[in-house]
Amino acid sequence: MTDFNKAIVLVSGGLDSTTTLAIAKKLGFECYALSFDYGQRHITELPAASRIAKSFDVKDHKVINIDLRQIGGSALTDESIDIPESPSKGIPITYVPARNTLFLSYALAWAEVLNANDIFIGVNSIDYSGYPDCRPEYINAYENLATLATKAGVEGTKFKIHAPLIDLSKADIIKKGIALNVDYAQTVSCYQADKQGYACGVCDSCRFRKEGFEDAKINDPTRYKN
Amino acid sequence: MTDFNKAIVLVSGGLDSTTTLAIAKKLGFECYALSFDYGQRHITELPAASRIAKSFDVKDHKVINIDLRQIGGSALTDESIDIPESPSKGIPITYVPARNTLFLSYALAWAEVLNANDIFIGVNSIDYSGYPDCRPEYINAYENLATLATKAGVEGTKFKIHAPLIDLSKADIIKKGIALNVDYAQTVSCYQADKQGYACGVCDSCRFRKEGFEDAKINDPTRYKN
Repeated sequence: MTDFNKAIVLVSGGLDSTTTLAIAKKLGFECYALSFDYGQRHITELPAASRIAKSFDVKDHKVINIDLRQIGGSALTDESIDIPESPSKGIPITYVPARNTLFLSYALAWAEVLNANDIFIGVNSIDYSGYPDCRPEYINAYENLATLATKAGVEGTKFKIHAPLIDLSKADIIKKGIALNVDYAQTVSCYQADKQGYACGVCDSCRFRKEGFEDAKINDPTRYKN
Repeated sequence: MTDFNKAIVLVSGGLDSTTTLAIAKKLGFECYALSFDYGQRHITELPAASRIAKSFDVKDHKVINIDLRQIGGSALTDESIDIPESPSKGIPITYVPARNTLFLSYALAWAEVLNANDIFIGVNSIDYSGYPDCRPEYINAYENLATLATKAGVEGTKFKIHAPLIDLSKADIIKKGIALNVDYAQTVSCYQADKQGYACGVCDSCRFRKEGFEDAKINDPTRYKN
């Protein structure tokens, strides 16, 4: 019953997930893009996600509304907490509790309905903020859960959570994307991008991105506020 | 940092989750009830959940809106699929893809924000419809994931997913609830309960409930349509 050609791809509108979508396409998957309006302050990433999904000619693109402001606990979903503009010790306050677990769970539900068994997520555990739900051991645990959690799993489907960027440096991610003709000018990574998508250049996400372009010796097409 | 006294309890408004809430209270937890408006056709369970949460004097009760109709694939979230009124082979069409995984993920997010490490869910793998996400191996896999997924987990918290009904018969669940003064007349289990909460008496959920009262030799307080 499984359709081996279909994959759900989590697409935030940022650099990593766009590269991941390019990789999934290149591997020959028919891609179903999934984005979330979760109350993130950098809501400008969603129009970027839509443009990107369209430019990659995905089969379908769903934007699911999940109000994580009701839960709170993160600078990304609580306007009263400032976005850090310099590196912080440990896991920063931009961590959103259980975010990737929620995202993957919606992806799993949709995969099951579509008879797909492949899910792509652009997590990275090298040039990243130390978020626990970006580590290989987390991805492995989710893959194990997915098969146990579902009717499809009981009936023999082995879900595969693809995290093709997980052990790449940001520079290598960018080089891979460029080789796949990704237009990074279309992507928005900044945690506090303005309504036009201009980036702050100083949040963690901007810093990793900026250094990635520098290290890759590739011209940074990001539109910065200053 | 963990507050050992706090627990998130998933409360649907049905018999099992109400009994689970009674057990969590009895164990001395300060309970935070969590319910979902997920596009279920038996939406009448939500007012029941609110009454029950109130009657157990929970510290807080959140009802989170998650539109699973966008995903579909179940008789509970797609009005064009009939609710089966006789036992079916295998996992029935009332199975909602990844539902408990989504529910537990919201519970996990809230637990992390509250510095709680205990989550209660009323799943049962004896008198049940064979849903994969009600089995002990699934609960164990989720518990493992929860600790890997979170900042709290990285910092040493071991999340505990309590499933106190998992190996009880429906009759034993009812007996336990009665011993804890649960008023089952307040609960709604039926997949196609009407707006007043009257039950059909013939869906899987009604059948398990009805047989449970019979086996327990306890008067069934359910209000049936006929």
